Amino acid sequence: MDLLSIKDPSFLKDLSIKELESLGEDIRKFLIEKLSKTGGHIGPNLGVVELTIALHKCFNSPQDKIIWDVGHQSYVHKILTGRACQFDTLRQYKGLCGFPKMSESEHDVWETGHSSTSLSAAMGMAVARNIKGENTHVVPVIGDGALTGGMALEALNHIGHEKEKVIVILNDNEMSIAPNVGAIHNVLGRLRTAGKYNWVKDELEVILKKVPAVGNQLAGTAERIKDSLKYMFVPGMFFEELGFTYLGPIDGHNYEDLFENIAYAKKYDGPVLLHVITKKGKGYQPAEADRVGTWHGTGPYKTETGAFVKPKSSPPAWSALVSETVRKVAREDKRIVAITPAMPVGSKLEGFASEFPDRMFDVGIAEQHAATFAAGLATQNMKPFLAIYSTFLQRAYDQVVHDICRQNLNVFIGIDRAGLVGADGETHQGVFDIAFLRHLPNLVLMMPKDENEGQHLVYTALKYDDGPIALRFPRGNGLGVEMEESLREIPIGTWEVLREGDDAAILTFGTTIPMALAAAAELEKQGVSVKVVNCRFLKPLDIPMLSGILEDNMPILTIEEAVLQGGFGSFILETANELGFDGAKIDRLGIPDKFIEHGNVDELLNEIELTSEAAVERIKRWARQKEKRA
Amino acid sequence: MDLLSIKDPSFLKDLSIKELESLGEDIRKFLIEKLSKTGGHIGPNLGVVELTIALHKCFNSPQDKIIWDVGHQSYVHKILTGRACQFDTLRQYKGLCGFPKMSESEHDVWETGHSSTSLSAAMGMAVARNIKGENTHVVPVIGDGALTGGMALEALNHIGHEKEKVIVILNDNEMSIAPNVGAIHNVLGRLRTAGKYNWVKDELEVILKKVPAVGNQLAGTAERIKDSLKYMFVPGMFFEELGFTYLGPIDGHNYEDLFENIAYAKKYDGPVLLHVITKKGKGYQPAEADRVGTWHGTGPYKTETGAFVKPKSSPPAWSALVSETVRKVAREDKRIVAITPAMPVGSKLEGFASEFPDRMFDVGIAEQHAATFAAGLATQNMKPFLAIYSTFLQRAYDQVVHDICRQNLNVFIGIDRAGLVGADGETHQGVFDIAFLRHLPNLVLMMPKDENEGQHLVYTALKYDDGPIALRFPRGNGLGVEMEESLREIPIGTWEVLREGDDAAILTFGTTIPMALAAAAELEKQGVSVKVVNCRFLKPLDIPMLSGILEDNMPILTIEEAVLQGGFGSFILETANELGFDGAKIDRLGIPDKFIEHGNVDELLNEIELTSEAAVERIKRWARQKEKRA
Repeated sequence: MDLLSIKDPSFLKDLSIKELESLGEDIRKFLIEKLSKTGGHIGPNLGVVELTIALHKCFNSPQDKIIWDVGHQSYVHKILTGRACQFDTLRQYKGLCGFPKMSESEHDVWETGHSSTSLSAAMGMAVARNIKGENTHVVPVIGDGALTGGMALEALNHIGHEKEKVIVILNDNEMSIAPNVGAIHNVLGRLRTAGKYNWVKDELEVILKKVPAVGNQLAGTAERIKDSLKYMFVPGMFFEELGFTYLGPIDGHNYEDLFENIAYAKKYDGPVLLHVITKKGKGYQPAEADRVGTWHGTGPYKTETGAFVKPKSSPPAWSALVSETVRKVAREDKRIVAITPAMPVGSKLEGFASEFPDRMFDVGIAEQHAATFAAGLATQNMKPFLAIYSTFLQRAYDQVVHDICRQNLNVFIGIDRAGLVGADGETHQGVFDIAFLRHLPNLVLMMPKDENEGQHLVYTALKYDDGPIALRFPRGNGLGVEMEESLREIPIGTWEVLREGDDAAILTFGTTIPMALAAAAELEKQGVSVKVVNCRFLKPLDIPMLSGILEDNMPILTIEEAVLQGGFGSFILETANELGFDGAKIDRLGIPDKFIEHGNVDELLNEIELTSEAAVERIKRWARQKEKRA
Repeated sequence: MDLLSIKDPSFLKDLSIKELESLGEDIRKFLIEKLSKTGGHIGPNLGVVELTIALHKCFNSPQDKIIWDVGHQSYVHKILTGRACQFDTLRQYKGLCGFPKMSESEHDVWETGHSSTSLSAAMGMAVARNIKGENTHVVPVIGDGALTGGMALEALNHIGHEKEKVIVILNDNEMSIAPNVGAIHNVLGRLRTAGKYNWVKDELEVILKKVPAVGNQLAGTAERIKDSLKYMFVPGMFFEELGFTYLGPIDGHNYEDLFENIAYAKKYDGPVLLHVITKKGKGYQPAEADRVGTWHGTGPYKTETGAFVKPKSSPPAWSALVSETVRKVAREDKRIVAITPAMPVGSKLEGFASEFPDRMFDVGIAEQHAATFAAGLATQNMKPFLAIYSTFLQRAYDQVVHDICRQNLNVFIGIDRAGLVGADGETHQGVFDIAFLRHLPNLVLMMPKDENEGQHLVYTALKYDDGPIALRFPRGNGLGVEMEESLREIPIGTWEVLREGDDAAILTFGTTIPMALAAAAELEKQGVSVKVVNCRFLKPLDIPMLSGILEDNMPILTIEEAVLQGGFGSFILETANELGFDGAKIDRLGIPDKFIEHGNVDELLNEIELTSEAAVERIKRWARQKEKRA
């Protein structure tokens, strides 16, 4: 059918299963074709075609609330709610968002991007429904990976206790971004292999053997018991214990199976968990064959072959640079342990994992545990490297405060995807970390100007033994600079002058250094001589250098790809003030006090006027003032 | 025995059970006596006397790592590790800390104060042990309340998956601070009532009835199955599913039972969970009889009667003022729902709960879920009031960013215990919240000068419908000011001049206002006229008033009982800079860049020189500079 003509999901009510199957085909073709141009989360969406269609056929959105956990699997939902025509702009500046977005559609009842929030949101919506006396369904759709996030477990605990009527769809595809880990994952694995009507006898035998006295006593009747119990105990026991009625496992690509179980769940007056098995990448061979997560989210590709259009450019990816440097140092330093909360591929830790399997831990989507696990290691004189994205470190804020910084433990936090991340948009921008970290006592915070300095700062962090140290680095690739062979420590709290100048100074770091240098070059043409400083230590600051600049009465412009409020420029203001330079002329460029949506990074920087042109303009304003005064 | 003579726990190895019982008696008497003078966490510690003795007898601390979750139940541990002589100074300035403290003893291997961190720490220590090839035990002791914290569940998931040898002691006293809630709590309740060797038959019947087809088929054999299975399935199934070997329930006041099970756990090569039942307040009748948490932590009391020495002073406690105002408004506004993460008593929500039982939710120790649950309610046009302590809000930082502020939802966050909290010390100081909140777009942040303004700001927050709004208020009681009858809205972003003056301005808020007024009064005597402003809106600032002060060229002193870095004074610096007042003379008083230990608030304020004397001194310094220039 013509997907572009869909206005809302009501048309599904009249379709036969045959017609739904044909619709599913059309949607798959559409997604494979469209995403080959724009890139996007192809794997997760191909996996939920039938599930999404079934949910919109069986429930009445938006009166019934369908809540997408994480949200990157909502493309089919977007098509069914009238947004197919916008897919050419997917994840592009001012285009269709890659996640649910209330401003796009009344059917997007909850916005997300971070994992494991859907059950708490569902509980809120269910309680609101009850208080208002309404009679609608609340249907969170959560992946098996997201289920291990602590807040999802907190919510299960609460929903089960309150016996709240919520229909949880557990979308179990055995991998979230990378293959999932954890004991709960193992529970699901047992349920999957057990099958709905075929509980594994071996398992009961194992259990019987664990209780010898009883095992003997039971020996004769064991066979019969096993048969009798096959429907009962093990399938879903974990969820039943938490107060849920467990239904499953259900084939997530089979409409009859889905309809039957959803119908039962709707009738049941209490919390239900539907365990739906889906296949990530379903219907597109390259994505279906993926076992590590390459097809979770991609750039453009050729539909016929699945070859990616843009080969990786030559400079090393930042994640790889950092992880491989850690790996190199770990050969000498046996104290080094790497930890990732479910991002072994994103954080490029595959090499470390294969070389040091005993010193590498993927803890699943569990940022809080990851941080405090690192702290526990550090109390025993180990040197943990916690690889985590800036936006997800937000979820471990208390653990960084209370467990790592307060105990002043030697944890090295590698803050990946710091700064604007582009297409993933406002839920994923790594722009708050300076503001939420720099007020923490004991913490050293760094950002390198390029990948060569990056490797030295990684080395510095691994050699540092006076407390927690963090290195933020951007998404994407390095600049392609020459890499020095031998690693060296860079003295803590030292900046570097990249360009000398007398009329003004730009203090900046990381990704905005090229912008600063461009501005300085342009200003030189206009007769203004600008010093550019690489402020690679964001805490502690290089006080001698900063004092020198202030003493020279140079106007200062700070530039940061991070929020201005409480950020780096703010720290410069505070410090100038503390040093007694009240009259100092300081100006700040950075991210204003609003959430920044998706788009490519250059477009976003333009929108918020974080550009070398803006830097030139700011500094010229002073020059004009100076002329006026003169 | 003479508890003061204990140097370390090695003496326990030679004691008989009879002698241990006598030791336990002595410890109880000691605690009841000492804490009657100093106050402290009496209930939790009386409950773990035998358990702590047993752990130190069966394990070799500090080679074996005993990790106290939350940590306020570590007093018996402190006595057994040679610190009885310091109990007169418990929780006092420079005295014995109320929580584990590495600097006090090598037996304190992990510091804490916030709940649910012990399992992650234990995993870190266990992994370090393995990598080093050591052969020691790691023994986290976690309460049933703390177990519902998401990060504890994340850690269980990881430990169970890795099959790591960790001996988890689940100290189950059925209440943490208030009676516990949640489905996991219900699981424990079933285990407790089931007893170790007596699985409840009724339960199986319920389960059988849930599966009608099978139930019929089984009808004949049901009786035999029930008997046969009584050892097997239900006890500990929840933990067994997660990969743990479950032992219990164990009587936590019975040494034989404890020794036998600990010995078994030590031999077992994998994760074990010992479910130990203890009685909070055990051995002291007033504490034992407590069903709501009054004896969780107390001030001084009379040992004979259990009467508290210091009756509540007449001004209302801040928590009560806020919660009761919410309750009052909730009579008119049915959209208001109250949420607490396990602090119904601390947040004084009992009245609200009894009047609006359907609109009050204690979600257990689950701050992340609490915040996003509130967000979910707000999407449905409800008005959630999230009552949470400043220090615990740290754990919901990401939820405040990603779910509440980013979606711009009408959640009212009541930030209790903001500022220095005193005896609980560095894990509990509520000093970071301004720095971790003010950079968040859409958020309004307030703090009242007194309880009358407090009730109006609560009203303002409940009437506000443009996004998230938070009110921070201190621990303890109000000032005793007169309360106005009718509630009114205070315009968002408006400050109030409390005292006029021309020579300088103090910008401050909340608890430091009296300090500012005292400084102004003192300065007036010395001929310096100081304006004092109540900056009750910390975000947005009152830009017209701030501009006016800056235009008048008045030097400004900011005072805040919060961290200076990224705090309120920092915001004033940023704003003055943005408004173009580069030469403005601004000075800041607040909390320096270090963690602040325990002690009474005045002592702490003195230590960090956050006093009216310091304010006078700062302002006089300008006056002198001015004279010099003149």
